[in-house]
Amino acid sequence: MIGTAIWLTGLPSSGKTTTALALAAALQERGVRVECLDGDELRHKVGRELGFSKEDRMENIRRAVYISKLLNRNGVTTIISMIAPYTEMRDYARAELQPYVEVYVHCPLEQCVQRDRKGLYAKAIKGEIPAFTGISDVYEQPVHPEITIHTHISSVESNVSHILEYLNK
Amino acid sequence: MIGTAIWLTGLPSSGKTTTALALAAALQERGVRVECLDGDELRHKVGRELGFSKEDRMENIRRAVYISKLLNRNGVTTIISMIAPYTEMRDYARAELQPYVEVYVHCPLEQCVQRDRKGLYAKAIKGEIPAFTGISDVYEQPVHPEITIHTHISSVESNVSHILEYLNK
Repeated sequence: MIGTAIWLTGLPSSGKTTTALALAAALQERGVRVECLDGDELRHKVGRELGFSKEDRMENIRRAVYISKLLNRNGVTTIISMIAPYTEMRDYARAELQPYVEVYVHCPLEQCVQRDRKGLYAKAIKGEIPAFTGISDVYEQPVHPEITIHTHISSVESNVSHILEYLNK
Repeated sequence: MIGTAIWLTGLPSSGKTTTALALAAALQERGVRVECLDGDELRHKVGRELGFSKEDRMENIRRAVYISKLLNRNGVTTIISMIAPYTEMRDYARAELQPYVEVYVHCPLEQCVQRDRKGLYAKAIKGEIPAFTGISDVYEQPVHPEITIHTHISSVESNVSHILEYLNK
């Protein structure tokens, strides 16, 4: 009875948190124990001092993985919504967490910039945020995600169904 | 089905980790899901940058409480072995975690200095560690612990039995 780690990776404003919350609700309805580990919340709770350098992002990922493991081995499924922009970060998570399901939350950059949920793209474009993923920092596209969803084309409901279908297999 | 948070507080080398490990084994034998959250390990996993100022110690406690909560609400009992030297830190944990059982792991300072499991008392006495609990930093004795054990007098087994008895009530 090991919980699954479901990692939602994607650009800022791609729809990770929205998908995570809807997926969590759907899993709970089905009686699955689930916890959402959201990148922003994790920074607030266990990484206030961390910035956005590659090292600090990696440390943030390590902390998420540590907490996820504690939950997974006690039968709790985790939904981790974190950009995790480098392939090596996702490979680390994949190596550490079993079972691990990587969901690439895909949305074209222009659309993400338009959404700009937290107003951060606007700042980054003005040069006010030095290492902002998609603008002033790299996002390496996932090469072998278990699932890819396209949030600019399909609805939250259909994306969640797609993930649930995969999990049921 | 909420897990209990069992907080072992006491001086360095008072026997917190030894008690925690024995208690965890005894609980596991009884079919209880349990995780040990050890102060040193937590610093390594989610608080590398934290020092031993009051603020940093408090931040470390907050992180432990956050992780404990995630586990407790999923039915996992946690055994948190952390000095938590200030009353306000333990009061914070007590307010945040329910049910919460505070175990004062008592051992006279002289005995702890003699044990000096990690060789840190020796360094602290030489003045090489600025904020070392018991020597160069305060330890406020618990005023209302649910349980007090005396590790210089009674065996690990009897201390664990004492805690189990309380938990069974």
